[in-house]
Amino acid sequence: MSSSDARYMARALTLARNGLYTTDPNPRVGCVLVKGGEIIAEGWHAQAGQAHAEIDALAKLADQSLAQGATAYVTLEPCSHHGRTGPCCDALIQAGIGRVVVAMQDPNPLVAGNGLKKMRAAGIEVSCGLLQTDAEQLNRGFIKRMVSGLPYVRSKLAMSLDGRTALANGESQWITSSQARQDVQMFRAESSAIVTGVDTVLADDPSLNARVDFTVKQPVRVVLDSNLRMPANAKMLRLPGETWVITCSDDPAKQSPLRDAGCKIWQVGSRTGRVDLREAFRLLAQQQINTVWIEAGAALNGALLETELVDEWLLYVAPCALGDQARGLFQFPELQSMEAKKPFKFNAVRQVGPDLRLTLSR
Amino acid sequence: MSSSDARYMARALTLARNGLYTTDPNPRVGCVLVKGGEIIAEGWHAQAGQAHAEIDALAKLADQSLAQGATAYVTLEPCSHHGRTGPCCDALIQAGIGRVVVAMQDPNPLVAGNGLKKMRAAGIEVSCGLLQTDAEQLNRGFIKRMVSGLPYVRSKLAMSLDGRTALANGESQWITSSQARQDVQMFRAESSAIVTGVDTVLADDPSLNARVDFTVKQPVRVVLDSNLRMPANAKMLRLPGETWVITCSDDPAKQSPLRDAGCKIWQVGSRTGRVDLREAFRLLAQQQINTVWIEAGAALNGALLETELVDEWLLYVAPCALGDQARGLFQFPELQSMEAKKPFKFNAVRQVGPDLRLTLSR
Repeated sequence: MSSSDARYMARALTLARNGLYTTDPNPRVGCVLVKGGEIIAEGWHAQAGQAHAEIDALAKLADQSLAQGATAYVTLEPCSHHGRTGPCCDALIQAGIGRVVVAMQDPNPLVAGNGLKKMRAAGIEVSCGLLQTDAEQLNRGFIKRMVSGLPYVRSKLAMSLDGRTALANGESQWITSSQARQDVQMFRAESSAIVTGVDTVLADDPSLNARVDFTVKQPVRVVLDSNLRMPANAKMLRLPGETWVITCSDDPAKQSPLRDAGCKIWQVGSRTGRVDLREAFRLLAQQQINTVWIEAGAALNGALLETELVDEWLLYVAPCALGDQARGLFQFPELQSMEAKKPFKFNAVRQVGPDLRLTLSR
Repeated sequence: MSSSDARYMARALTLARNGLYTTDPNPRVGCVLVKGGEIIAEGWHAQAGQAHAEIDALAKLADQSLAQGATAYVTLEPCSHHGRTGPCCDALIQAGIGRVVVAMQDPNPLVAGNGLKKMRAAGIEVSCGLLQTDAEQLNRGFIKRMVSGLPYVRSKLAMSLDGRTALANGESQWITSSQARQDVQMFRAESSAIVTGVDTVLADDPSLNARVDFTVKQPVRVVLDSNLRMPANAKMLRLPGETWVITCSDDPAKQSPLRDAGCKIWQVGSRTGRVDLREAFRLLAQQQINTVWIEAGAALNGALLETELVDEWLLYVAPCALGDQARGLFQFPELQSMEAKKPFKFNAVRQVGPDLRLTLSR
């Protein structure tokens, strides 16, 4: 590995990021073809059903013979299986590529390394692991789904300085700044699904879409609704895109008006009378949801604290006080001793307009 | 002004900081004497009753004749009046100093500029304002007391991620880390007084002293106690140093056991049945309290939000959740609309061990 290898791979990662808002459920992948110290073609995966990054780069060559003996930098191990497009390995081999540098193996443990093996068997010089951490960062959801059968889950909370999310009368618009709310739209835009609880739907009737001024594959809206209290006239059901309700209820009288309104209904098991969260998230992964963005109230967030399902907590803190009559962040049974406190750790702190954004994990 | 002027003044400010924990109620002041491009003596004010910085520097000269034609850098305008020591202006004039560079004028509006005038009249080249902001930062309490008749007030709060200061059962030891608690000791050590409410005394029986391993003028302990509920056997009354109680009660039966226990009792007016906070803080300033460090509960902090008495809020945030049964940060009447929220602004964010320290002002 040389410093120019790292430079080309960094460029491939930048290209991969072009697909941040569109490749879902596929991973974001970039590819750079280099010959004689010059980049001769660049490619990336734009969206499911379209060319993989390697194929995209090869197609952009001025002349296919240029590929002979060139080096390909790819942010993810080229695929060796027939998906909607042919295997990328075969394409690189047939094009006469002499060397392939890969940032990370395919995260699917069943096929990881197969692509590398196939190319090596065809006489290509193959190496793997360059800028691997950056490559992993870009596809955390895809990787987690492949490895564990669960999505990468972030829960967003917005609170006052004194930990309040709404006034006692329920008013919550707005605690944080417009800049913080725009920041939230960016996270929504890169998520596969936005999850909330039915209480939030009943209280705020939210849209739960990504309101950004660039092309985005809109996330699926998911409502956790143990007893099917979801109103068939909820605003989100009139918006473009899909709304899924995950419930424990098999009551057809409750299900059919929602189906008529365009809802997809998924039934899962219950846990202490509510939707089994682990089962719900496993279901989402089975439906190819890589990343989940939760915007929910104190009850659901309190319940999530009892699980290990949330990978990251994003806490927007506005510089204002709402007082101890206002509503809290996490609802769970009274703690009897300080040892029972729920531990987190700070991963990052950032200023967003006049607010702070704290990133935490458990 | 030249870059070497700034360098010598920066050195004088560093010397002034030697008195951070000991000069109270006097300001922290440093002085550097320079001749022929070399520092010939340095001084600072160590504690009330001892030499001022200029006198200390002159006394450290190997030979008094060296002062002839030297430049003195002083972080605060040399005094022109007779206090416990003679006027520093006269000493500089008599020593034959040729030039005096001052960071800031005396904050007392009644004497500001008199020292500069006196030295100019004696033929000394005098300039003022170099690194003024840094000099002001060092003596915020002294300046505020001189200018406004009120102390510089900081209120410290320690909370969980979800804005809770104690469990519902009252347990609060410990939410934050030992590093955060040590950080608090440093702030206590540089304060003139530590203020709390009687509810905190009754609940926690705190020591309210600065527990640090260097020499410090211990802050005065001040308890705000409208109805004299302060117990005469409170732990702080058995510790070295002074304890003051500020009350609205003139009940001799309540006052005398406290006086017997060594308490000083101050009576002020009341406001909605409680100690008038403005009057209490004005009293503290009259008693030469420059800086106040508040460690109090939700009731007093809620009441302080209704005033403009607090200059800085220090909020330690521990990465843990205590849940919505736990106790809140600010107690005040329920807000009816979001417009009524109490605004702050973030001035600084710092990591302290595993916790965050947010610095805010209104």
